Amino acid sequence: MVHQQFMARALQLARRGVYTTHPNPRVGCVIVKDGQIIAEGFHAKAGEGHAEVQALANATADVSGATAYVTLEPCSHHGRTPPCAEALISAGVAEVVYGMQDPNPEVSGNGLAALEKAGVKVTGPVMESECRTLNPGFIKRMEEGLPYVRVKLAMSVDGRTAMESGESQWITGPEARQDVQRLRAQSAAIVTGIGSVIMDNPSMTVRIDTEGNEVDAKQVRQPLRVIMDTALSVPPEAKILYPTDQATIFCDEEEIEDDHLAALQKKGIAVRFVPRGDDDRLDLVEAMGQLADEGINEVLVETGAELAGAFLNAGLVDELVIYMAPKLLGSAARPLVNLPLENMSEAVELDLVDVAKIGSDIKLVYVPQYRDEEDL
Amino acid sequence: MVHQQFMARALQLARRGVYTTHPNPRVGCVIVKDGQIIAEGFHAKAGEGHAEVQALANATADVSGATAYVTLEPCSHHGRTPPCAEALISAGVAEVVYGMQDPNPEVSGNGLAALEKAGVKVTGPVMESECRTLNPGFIKRMEEGLPYVRVKLAMSVDGRTAMESGESQWITGPEARQDVQRLRAQSAAIVTGIGSVIMDNPSMTVRIDTEGNEVDAKQVRQPLRVIMDTALSVPPEAKILYPTDQATIFCDEEEIEDDHLAALQKKGIAVRFVPRGDDDRLDLVEAMGQLADEGINEVLVETGAELAGAFLNAGLVDELVIYMAPKLLGSAARPLVNLPLENMSEAVELDLVDVAKIGSDIKLVYVPQYRDEEDL
Repeated sequence: MVHQQFMARALQLARRGVYTTHPNPRVGCVIVKDGQIIAEGFHAKAGEGHAEVQALANATADVSGATAYVTLEPCSHHGRTPPCAEALISAGVAEVVYGMQDPNPEVSGNGLAALEKAGVKVTGPVMESECRTLNPGFIKRMEEGLPYVRVKLAMSVDGRTAMESGESQWITGPEARQDVQRLRAQSAAIVTGIGSVIMDNPSMTVRIDTEGNEVDAKQVRQPLRVIMDTALSVPPEAKILYPTDQATIFCDEEEIEDDHLAALQKKGIAVRFVPRGDDDRLDLVEAMGQLADEGINEVLVETGAELAGAFLNAGLVDELVIYMAPKLLGSAARPLVNLPLENMSEAVELDLVDVAKIGSDIKLVYVPQYRDEEDL
Repeated sequence: MVHQQFMARALQLARRGVYTTHPNPRVGCVIVKDGQIIAEGFHAKAGEGHAEVQALANATADVSGATAYVTLEPCSHHGRTPPCAEALISAGVAEVVYGMQDPNPEVSGNGLAALEKAGVKVTGPVMESECRTLNPGFIKRMEEGLPYVRVKLAMSVDGRTAMESGESQWITGPEARQDVQRLRAQSAAIVTGIGSVIMDNPSMTVRIDTEGNEVDAKQVRQPLRVIMDTALSVPPEAKILYPTDQATIFCDEEEIEDDHLAALQKKGIAVRFVPRGDDDRLDLVEAMGQLADEGINEVLVETGAELAGAFLNAGLVDELVIYMAPKLLGSAARPLVNLPLENMSEAVELDLVDVAKIGSDIKLVYVPQYRDEEDL
């Protein structure tokens, strides 16, 4: 129980990096001696010290003989900063309690082995499930080479997103919209479709209210803005393209006009090519794989029924985050996801993982239960 | 605060009649002397003693000089039982604390006046809003001549009730279905449409699990089963017609075949005529008015998108009770309510009054915000 108390504090510290650490994981560290916390640290952003190094630097007493609690196995490789396992050993830490092993299969366990080899007692995993929850994107990228994908949808009680005409602004209330800003801020990339860009001309930037969040608003990174645009038909003045160094477009190389491509690239916009899949759409698995290769951990898909349905069909959705507004838009209005199914047996089964009242809306978080390949 | 403590107990007692008192209201009574409860009672069913009379009969000490707590103003008229105000006066009760006045505008206050005239101290209303919540149907019938209408809908997350083919059974889980049984049991009438009868052939009877409910299963009354059937086309063998003495059909007198009418009436089924309204459907306000005249307090509408939409359009819906199953049925599936709207400004605004997890489903209770006539 003592372990859990200190690990819970390390988790709390780790969460301060929720908007800023990517592509790195969120990690917290607490150093304890004689039952007292003598040092705390967390990883804030890439290039700055890891949680263990921050904690060692903040120590208010001699750490030799102390116990370090870390939400993630200390690293053993020389990256932009020296390995944390080495730093803990040099400081004379007697025991390391870790939350979860490194999810990268190629280095998992190496940090723990280095500590043990140096005579440091290693205990764990402690509160593993909570520690995994901190970094769904980092873990999925390391384990599967794909980002963790949340699809955000705002709908009426009768499951509609907009009127037939497309009229749709402000279905949900201000509290729900602020919650979406937090989802955006913790995502490394926001993905939308060209249809939404042309219809709504969104800027997709993060405007976050960090009050009471223990997070510095100035530290929030703007996520990459990604457009799925098969024929590269995005208007050059679309708001989502600016600032251009954080905009990426996926398109089909065989369908684009070279002039338009050159003009966009000249502005500094990244244009990436992916082939079309069996459903004649851009291959979303390939696109997400490319984003993961660029270090994108968590992706927020904010789009219309078409692209949301395509992400579901591709088996890429880790979470459906639904904001349900207290109104009925009626049976002529636009559907939540474009997913034409014939039989009940084809229904997409979901697991409810969270329900909360947000202002006058309800927030629902579901995890799709994809059938095994054999069942299809 | 002492008043509230005893009134809360009276409310608790009143709830024991939730499935059985109609057409009467649910009422509870507690008699207190020297700070101790010396008697408790509640109204169980029409023809049996009112709550005050039951409490007086159950008294474990002399009630003279005591205080009686009653959730509803004691009656002053001779109905099937003698007036309760008189019984309290004869018993020598010194004070009556009441929860709410009688909602019938013609007798409201008469019971209180009779008590005061006899020298009994009268205090209240106490916990009025809780006391009103006990009897939404009785109150609405007395105040407006209409029953309290709940529309129950079972839907997927994307707001669909069935596949395009009509395939629909078991969208929700067993806990939600048991909850529906409780809704049915507290309703004096269940209303459905001829489409649902022909598609699903439901029996619409109450099969309630009263475990842990302080309610005797044998006491649960089967609600009236009501079919909206314009052309009187219900098949004579439809399950919903049996037992026939608790079945009622609304139809348009000008559209029916006399032979079929006679055959149904011979079975003991009540056939009622209502004209068609502006939307060419049976006039639902007229039909609900007829049910209220028959003493129906609470109505549960269990039906498809068409009739649910018609009830909404008619401004008759007091509560939407929605069970949302964790699945996506897709964009080709049937809509929740048939309500074709063109503009966002026509959207039906709802107030969320309750959200709860029931098994793996979510139960949502909304109150429609009908616009004032002038706004239409």
